[in-house]
Amino acid sequence: MKSVVIGASGYTGAELLRILAFHPDIEVILAAASSHAGQPISELFPSLFPHYGDMVFSDADRLINDLEDGIEHADIAFLALPHGVSQAIVPRLYDKVGLIVDLSADFRLRDPEAYPIWYKAAHASPFYLKKAVYGLPELTRSQLKGARLIAVAGCYVTCSTLPLFPLLSAGLIERDSIIIDAASGVSGAGRSLKSSYLFSEVDENYSVYGLKNHRHTPEIEQNLGSKVLFTPHLLPTNRGILATTYSRPTTKFQRAIAAVSDPEMFGSDLILSELAKSYREESFVFATASPPSIKATLGSNNALVFGTYDQRTNTVITVSALDNLVKGASGQAVQCANIALGLPETTGLGLLGLYP
Amino acid sequence: MKSVVIGASGYTGAELLRILAFHPDIEVILAAASSHAGQPISELFPSLFPHYGDMVFSDADRLINDLEDGIEHADIAFLALPHGVSQAIVPRLYDKVGLIVDLSADFRLRDPEAYPIWYKAAHASPFYLKKAVYGLPELTRSQLKGARLIAVAGCYVTCSTLPLFPLLSAGLIERDSIIIDAASGVSGAGRSLKSSYLFSEVDENYSVYGLKNHRHTPEIEQNLGSKVLFTPHLLPTNRGILATTYSRPTTKFQRAIAAVSDPEMFGSDLILSELAKSYREESFVFATASPPSIKATLGSNNALVFGTYDQRTNTVITVSALDNLVKGASGQAVQCANIALGLPETTGLGLLGLYP
Amino acid sequence: MKSVVIGASGYTGAELLRILAFHPDIEVILAAASSHAGQPISELFPSLFPHYGDMVFSDADRLINDLEDGIEHADIAFLALPHGVSQAIVPRLYDKVGLIVDLSADFRLRDPEAYPIWYKAAHASPFYLKKAVYGLPELTRSQLKGARLIAVAGCYVTCSTLPLFPLLSAGLIERDSIIIDAASGVSGAGRSLKSSYLFSEVDENYSVYGLKNHRHTPEIEQNLGSKVLFTPHLLPTNRGILATTYSRPTTKFQRAIAAVSDPEMFGSDLILSELAKSYREESFVFATASPPSIKATLGSNNALVFGTYDQRTNTVITVSALDNLVKGASGQAVQCANIALGLPETTGLGLLGLYP
Amino acid sequence: MKSVVIGASGYTGAELLRILAFHPDIEVILAAASSHAGQPISELFPSLFPHYGDMVFSDADRLINDLEDGIEHADIAFLALPHGVSQAIVPRLYDKVGLIVDLSADFRLRDPEAYPIWYKAAHASPFYLKKAVYGLPELTRSQLKGARLIAVAGCYVTCSTLPLFPLLSAGLIERDSIIIDAASGVSGAGRSLKSSYLFSEVDENYSVYGLKNHRHTPEIEQNLGSKVLFTPHLLPTNRGILATTYSRPTTKFQRAIAAVSDPEMFGSDLILSELAKSYREESFVFATASPPSIKATLGSNNALVFGTYDQRTNTVITVSALDNLVKGASGQAVQCANIALGLPETTGLGLLGLYP
Repeated sequence: MKSVVIGASGYTGAELLRILAFHPDIEVILAAASSHAGQPISELFPSLFPHYGDMVFSDADRLINDLEDGIEHADIAFLALPHGVSQAIVPRLYDKVGLIVDLSADFRLRDPEAYPIWYKAAHASPFYLKKAVYGLPELTRSQLKGARLIAVAGCYVTCSTLPLFPLLSAGLIERDSIIIDAASGVSGAGRSLKSSYLFSEVDENYSVYGLKNHRHTPEIEQNLGSKVLFTPHLLPTNRGILATTYSRPTTKFQRAIAAVSDPEMFGSDLILSELAKSYREESFVFATASPPSIKATLGSNNALVFGTYDQRTNTVITVSALDNLVKGASGQAVQCANIALGLPETTGLGLLGLYP
Repeated sequence: MKSVVIGASGYTGAELLRILAFHPDIEVILAAASSHAGQPISELFPSLFPHYGDMVFSDADRLINDLEDGIEHADIAFLALPHGVSQAIVPRLYDKVGLIVDLSADFRLRDPEAYPIWYKAAHASPFYLKKAVYGLPELTRSQLKGARLIAVAGCYVTCSTLPLFPLLSAGLIERDSIIIDAASGVSGAGRSLKSSYLFSEVDENYSVYGLKNHRHTPEIEQNLGSKVLFTPHLLPTNRGILATTYSRPTTKFQRAIAAVSDPEMFGSDLILSELAKSYREESFVFATASPPSIKATLGSNNALVFGTYDQRTNTVITVSALDNLVKGASGQAVQCANIALGLPETTGLGLLGLYP
Repeated sequence: MKSVVIGASGYTGAELLRILAFHPDIEVILAAASSHAGQPISELFPSLFPHYGDMVFSDADRLINDLEDGIEHADIAFLALPHGVSQAIVPRLYDKVGLIVDLSADFRLRDPEAYPIWYKAAHASPFYLKKAVYGLPELTRSQLKGARLIAVAGCYVTCSTLPLFPLLSAGLIERDSIIIDAASGVSGAGRSLKSSYLFSEVDENYSVYGLKNHRHTPEIEQNLGSKVLFTPHLLPTNRGILATTYSRPTTKFQRAIAAVSDPEMFGSDLILSELAKSYREESFVFATASPPSIKATLGSNNALVFGTYDQRTNTVITVSALDNLVKGASGQAVQCANIALGLPETTGLGLLGLYP
Repeated sequence: MKSVVIGASGYTGAELLRILAFHPDIEVILAAASSHAGQPISELFPSLFPHYGDMVFSDADRLINDLEDGIEHADIAFLALPHGVSQAIVPRLYDKVGLIVDLSADFRLRDPEAYPIWYKAAHASPFYLKKAVYGLPELTRSQLKGARLIAVAGCYVTCSTLPLFPLLSAGLIERDSIIIDAASGVSGAGRSLKSSYLFSEVDENYSVYGLKNHRHTPEIEQNLGSKVLFTPHLLPTNRGILATTYSRPTTKFQRAIAAVSDPEMFGSDLILSELAKSYREESFVFATASPPSIKATLGSNNALVFGTYDQRTNTVITVSALDNLVKGASGQAVQCANIALGLPETTGLGLLGLYP
């Protein structure tokens, strides 16, 4: 199958190119960008040279305006664009391309009313919003089969949802008062040219951002059916997200551990085994016996989840990790596309992470 | 005055040497270490060469066993030793040296019964434990005047206590259900030769450690008179601690904001102004209008504290930052010594941080 | 085919496991280590978990002493051992295993007399030294076909040889007075537990090591047939080697540029085109139009080479880059094995590097 | 004395503010910037908050155009401006301010003809170029006394000149064929908003830049009276410069070592003792017995120099290190100002570096 990547000059675009280079069933026929049209891909991303050779970025604006330049030959369009841009493009692309995989937040929130609140603008194409399937395969796999428009889940969202969803579903933790304290490497901000992402500002630094109003909050809440307090931090690393979450055990949980000799150990095992059970059949999500680190996921499509119970403070804690550019974005996009297209879900995604 | 630094080959020891080099009233006459006796200080810490020249590490074991080699000339002994060692030494030093400033946890917890629980061994000198004054000047300044044995507060403890203590004292946040999610640079682990502190293991990594049982927990609880859940993370930086805390507003707080037009802004201002008021007269603690970053404190004795109110989830959040080796250890030790000795508290501590 | 990795608990061992995980023709049946026998591989290298699951490290010492535990089923033995150890093992393995691929320096220098000088000990098995084929495919491809014992080229050596060899062969640069100034990420030192490789010592640092006597010197000289001055530096990165070399143009070169209008441009093109011509048919070595960076090679088996001429100082400069753990070690080992076994050279090596 | 810092929003400007905060004789009355006028200094550089409080950046353009806003009260003007800007300003300031200390390259090259070649534009004020004294105290101390316009030496230039100048003066190394291979932390590029200085581009990277034409080349050549080939590299660190140089021993040197039993050791001692002798009386330059690292200088005004002789290749090698923002820029500027003003040279510069 033939694909185009629109927004290929950002880091998630480059990561799509990296992954698709070895996808046996999806070929990249065109990589379009707004700001680097005509420039060889390998000038911006020298690591891609061995596969993409002299291929240059197409002009994304012209591509979208004229829907020419080869897009008529594409079966799949991956959109790796800034938030807000996909809303305008999808209506024009929808009838031309069999499958649109959008990596932005533009089609993630089901409620159009949420956009003015969190994104400060009304949604431009509520008609297509209804058609979009949310792309977090471990939760929405069945809907993804045959989907025509996929809204790939956000990076923090995936990392936070994976440990919490099964615990909520099993009735082990309370639906309110969930706190998510997370940290991400800088590539999560893309290649934005802001002074706060300069090396000298980030290196040897660590800070909170988006306090109280980060846009991934409503998406996590939508997945969990729960109110959450989400606080992201900026790590001095290229990649990686770690989420540490705190929640209250339910009465059901507390009753389960009430009579045992070591409630802390028993409760922790309850949590861990629920996670293990939930992801036993999954190819990319693994329950680990100790808290994972981001380095364990670097460059791979894997997410690692861990949970435990703290009796002293009567709190359930989870720790989860993934690579924001892979399972948090481009790897998950390909995983979703595989499902939609009826391919084996792991096709082209059998990458092991780098270590160190 | 003359001082000895015992345990000078670790990072807090080296930081004491750096700070004392320009202290006008305290001179280092001897720097002792167990593992590097006879080696020039500047071989281990080349940055100290311009001041310490050819001075070599004295043999700490011999020094302590024989109490010779010059210790009789010392007015002050700074102990920068692993936890557990100070307990054995202090009883022998106490009558020889006018002021002992211990940077370990050995004399921090007032209750001797806490040691077996958190440190897995009974306290070896409960007699001296009673004599120790806890060294967190912003809380214990009056007791520090004339003190003879000071237990300098821990790094995470200082960073967590400074924002929370005033809010608890003012009755703005509940005393239970406080969550502290913190991260520290690697120097917090000292120069321990463990594979988990190798560059290739830490760089581009981020992880939880000490989950549910970090030893700073009882110390924070002692300061706050509150149960806390404390989760530390390891940052790929040399220095710096950032603590993000979550707590519930009290009924008093909620009543205060109930009638106003913008409860979130009003509540946030309430928190911020409480912090500002508490530290207005302090030389090293500053309330900031936005969340601080660790880079703002690099190399200085300053701590920065910030707080805000999230109406959506009815949570008070604080963010605070300091340099773990300065305000979190050696700078605070000197600050405590200054107070004990009747010197101006800021003597020798007027360092501005590096940026970048 | 079945392979064993001996010395699997080091970084080059782990990198072999990562690469072989997706090699269609070589399976890892056993990963042996001296210091971690019985421990799950994924405890040390969590990134390998998705492929290696519960596989534990075998006991390397027992394996080698008894040649049991499954080694009799192996077609290939990869030795990722400290220098000096392979010399003792190869004689015992040679008749049991069809192909031995040694990543150490033990069989790299053809002259046994070089070992006492550079490695401070006589070579223990000069008989097998004669049998060894040097593993730098771009130079020794024909000898590697059907080889039974391969001494994979060193990391710095590969990075330095690739740009210089063609220029020397073409008679463009003088064989004496070559200076190689290079820098490597810390993984080049393996997982050695030395205080100089602790995060706090390496981070924000940069320094020379092995000045005047680094052991890769005689290996580079053997490849080039030339005396070289080689100075390595330690970079605060996980991976990557960059080599900047300086050499004198030959009379032939100078004559070639004497009459042209722009000797600097013409001379630079001469150098670049020689590099391009030399590696046009290669799958893993690329001549680049501008100086490469290490990030362009991160995680891939590619080496990038660039060269230019500085008329002001009459000097030929080359800049080359590779990932020390891949093209500088484990990737090259697999490339060599592929050739020896008659497989397509790129089998299992089609990895694109991570960026960022 | 009262000083103004013009160009205070860059890293060298901020470093001047850091250093001058504790200078007993020089006060900063005004910090001007083009792009941040009206913004509190501590918003951009939060580490400066404890000293500069609510001070805001003045408007540099207005200041320079109108020469008002307090500049008439200044005794000293520090110019931390991009290259090319000082040339236009100095003529207007010269009669208003007793001492101008320019950190740019605008007045460093004595020959006005060099500017069109290396800076692509004729010098705008050759009249003042003649009045400028070059600010490298270890070489030009006597001229600096009473100077009115100082062109502070460049960062790479200082690091390269300090080890080579004494060896050339002593006739130990040849004046031609000197190669300088150096690396700098990113702050050397200032706060320029270029994508190549984004964290994700620099972190885990290392590369050459300014190959064959870096503008510090003619300045080094002017200091040494020698042609040099200078190749800078970009390090993934905030600060620090390390220079590794290669040069040929003179006949004089070779004769000196010809008859001794261990020419390498004797020659190395000759080099080292020449460096030691040259800098024995200096406060900020130290000859070290082994190659220095950049971490040994972090935050201090010290430069460390080392040299050795390699008999195998008949080459003299030096390694030198300094902090590019301190001894490479702002610290050196203050050192020069101290001399010009008749203050003790070390005033306000007694900072020990951070470690780690």
